[in-house]
Amino acid sequence: MIEKDGGKLVYVSSGCVKTAEGELPSRLKLILDNLHEVIKQYHPDLVAIEQVFVNINPKSTLLLGQARGAAICAAVLNNLQVSEYTALQIKQAVVGNGHAKKEQVQEMVMRILNLTSSPSSDAADALACAICHAHGGLGLGKISTAGYRMKRGRLV
Amino acid sequence: MIEKDGGKLVYVSSGCVKTAEGELPSRLKLILDNLHEVIKQYHPDLVAIEQVFVNINPKSTLLLGQARGAAICAAVLNNLQVSEYTALQIKQAVVGNGHAKKEQVQEMVMRILNLTSSPSSDAADALACAICHAHGGLGLGKISTAGYRMKRGRLV
Repeated sequence: MIEKDGGKLVYVSSGCVKTAEGELPSRLKLILDNLHEVIKQYHPDLVAIEQVFVNINPKSTLLLGQARGAAICAAVLNNLQVSEYTALQIKQAVVGNGHAKKEQVQEMVMRILNLTSSPSSDAADALACAICHAHGGLGLGKISTAGYRMKRGRLV
Repeated sequence: MIEKDGGKLVYVSSGCVKTAEGELPSRLKLILDNLHEVIKQYHPDLVAIEQVFVNINPKSTLLLGQARGAAICAAVLNNLQVSEYTALQIKQAVVGNGHAKKEQVQEMVMRILNLTSSPSSDAADALACAICHAHGGLGLGKISTAGYRMKRGRLV
């Protein structure tokens, strides 16, 4: 969760919903309930979600699809617009390189949001997705790189 | 939608939710809204859903997962218990043969529910899943086959 304050992006909150082992329906309900609570608490204006392309086994892909479906359901049930961005778009927007490593994404999320410590990898991905949307999803051009040393689109 | 009246199964309603081409979030919302309406109208006691095993391309698998996730969300949001059955279990319970063809499933669904015409293939699959649950999901043993001619688990 981030806030756009003029041209500045402000960190609000971040986290992961973890579902215990168990039956699928109750795990999906946990995702719904948790996200509903977050939405109720922070009243976001919109939601950005990573558009996944999966190259794992069909069972995991199906499971991921169901979890992602539940997350989108939580948003649309609260009448929130949902924007989707590919990992490539997100990395391009945040790091300036569509093939950046996870650590680079974490590092840039920390810098852009002025965090004192690095968020977890999953939380950083979510924050990066939000940053991507906040900057119009249009890549490095719209992100102020003042104070960052960049070389060929990479953070140095 | 079927009703269990003692040992007898009564047809209530069936159909398909079709989502037009468009953005994924609005398509998932259509599934949610449509199922919510059906649940509000008929007040089912529980929901049975086919447990899919997919052997299609990852993109379709992900899409199916998201649609299935939305359907399960509609159920759990209405506090309905969701039971999952594999196609094998369903066909075994309805036709008496886990590898029955689609037409055999449609035929048996018609007979079991005393329908005068065959439901569409998708609707028949859903009704078969409901029948499977109503009979305890335990296969042919619990289904009365009185009046049906069966041979080696097949309808003849």
